Amino acid sequence: MVYDVVIIGGGPAGLTAGIYAKRAMLDAVLLEGKGVGGQIIVTDLVENFPGFLEISGAELAAKFEEHAQKFGLEFRNMVDVTAIDDKGDTKLVKTTEGDIETKAVIIASGTTPRKLGVKGELEFTGRGVSYCATCDGFFFRDKVAVVVGGGDSAITEAIFLTKMVKKVYVIHRRDELRAEKINQEKAFANPKIKFVCDSVVEEIAGSNVVEKVILRKVSTDEISELKTDGVFIYVGLDPNTGFTDVEKDDWGFIIASQRMETSAGGIFAAGDCRNTPLRQIATAVGDGAIAAVSAGKYIEELTK
Amino acid sequence: MVYDVVIIGGGPAGLTAGIYAKRAMLDAVLLEGKGVGGQIIVTDLVENFPGFLEISGAELAAKFEEHAQKFGLEFRNMVDVTAIDDKGDTKLVKTTEGDIETKAVIIASGTTPRKLGVKGELEFTGRGVSYCATCDGFFFRDKVAVVVGGGDSAITEAIFLTKMVKKVYVIHRRDELRAEKINQEKAFANPKIKFVCDSVVEEIAGSNVVEKVILRKVSTDEISELKTDGVFIYVGLDPNTGFTDVEKDDWGFIIASQRMETSAGGIFAAGDCRNTPLRQIATAVGDGAIAAVSAGKYIEELTK
Repeated sequence: MVYDVVIIGGGPAGLTAGIYAKRAMLDAVLLEGKGVGGQIIVTDLVENFPGFLEISGAELAAKFEEHAQKFGLEFRNMVDVTAIDDKGDTKLVKTTEGDIETKAVIIASGTTPRKLGVKGELEFTGRGVSYCATCDGFFFRDKVAVVVGGGDSAITEAIFLTKMVKKVYVIHRRDELRAEKINQEKAFANPKIKFVCDSVVEEIAGSNVVEKVILRKVSTDEISELKTDGVFIYVGLDPNTGFTDVEKDDWGFIIASQRMETSAGGIFAAGDCRNTPLRQIATAVGDGAIAAVSAGKYIEELTK
Repeated sequence: MVYDVVIIGGGPAGLTAGIYAKRAMLDAVLLEGKGVGGQIIVTDLVENFPGFLEISGAELAAKFEEHAQKFGLEFRNMVDVTAIDDKGDTKLVKTTEGDIETKAVIIASGTTPRKLGVKGELEFTGRGVSYCATCDGFFFRDKVAVVVGGGDSAITEAIFLTKMVKKVYVIHRRDELRAEKINQEKAFANPKIKFVCDSVVEEIAGSNVVEKVILRKVSTDEISELKTDGVFIYVGLDPNTGFTDVEKDDWGFIIASQRMETSAGGIFAAGDCRNTPLRQIATAVGDGAIAAVSAGKYIEELTK
């Protein structure tokens, strides 16, 4: 069987692409490596997707999935894509569960939290080092946690952690945060959060579990230690685009047109994995809708 | 007072821009000429905004409005914008209710249904001619209606009309519809809908109210008459952009970058009024979020 569209990734972009593809009566299958929902699954509270005043990321993901299922989207979970073999009018999507032939591909594979790249990070992952406060915060109740980063994820997850931990130190390289102003104000007003600016983590140390971080002040190179039980790392996102050789920017994000076309005919990109100016659920759903409509038009042209 | 952002238009794009602007702690006001909600207010059923399996357009608009209100967005209703006077670092938004000074403007003014431009259209508007089945369909219960057009609006509103009318004729200039396939199939399966393809309306006629339409077959120029009580016109959308002189395409849609920047610094565009490849609620909310974040960055640069 040759599919019309293979959608790679089950976050908001991929699921919306699925809704639109099925409404366009295309034979579509969505491949997901982990659980459906993407990055939003590990988001405690979503307040800025219009129409939902307050909803947990997991709940919103479930609604998106239900919506795609309503229109009969086929799902394959626990499937990792290893390559896309572009044969012109058809593509062979190579996966850990075999090859899938399709006329068009929509890459909505999202991003992965970036590693800090310091000593102790790998060895203490799961023993104090985490990339998901929503998943692991509970293990640190009444303890001390460090959050590394200054963007929205860092600040909102620091606020989330204050529900359970005794104290949160936010370590940020610059003097100014990048997070939405509303999140900054919430964090500044929270007595459990202390900001350590102009500072980077040099090392994560401990015996069996994390016990402290070694900090360096950026402006003075001064070294200090900070005792902590947990280190939550939010220093950016790397695109999950290693399996495709379409044109990308210097950071690996796929370069896509307004119509979500990539450099390869019949391969489209949507959501966080592309070079978008903003990575939000609101933008991902727009991308997904456009990518599916563009894929539909591409297939129509093919068969003319 | 000088606002940070004036948002022109209260549809999904403008309301989402409002949510994001307020979350960025900007002084923002939203101007709306009619009621908040935009085109979706006159949409009977929304099935393709992810997260809401089935919702009326009016209900979804109310949710968006509530969401923007939660973050304190200021609304001014019944205000029409007549011009934007670009004074460089500030803009003067001229309205029917006085001038408003602001650092940035987000144009999310949407579109207006296009007129057919045939004899009888203007004189019978409100007496059988309508651009909104959701608004006026009820007046035609157990009667005959004609829908002109072949896009999504035409087809979904034809389906909607079958709930109340006896018979719906869909008059379409081409042989193929442009509507989403799922909508086409629903319409084809509906015994109350009859398609009259390869045909255009030449005239709308009657004495006091609409009584018939005069049709011309495009391929043969053959003229015929069709008795009907109502004519619902869905032949495209014209952008509401007459008040601004930023760069536009041949149809009047505002040309905007991926960051929603227009040709004028500090003036951004979002949603249906810009040259977007797809006009959907899902794409409008993405545009709105990006426009607000871009406006915030622009204002930050201004004050540096």
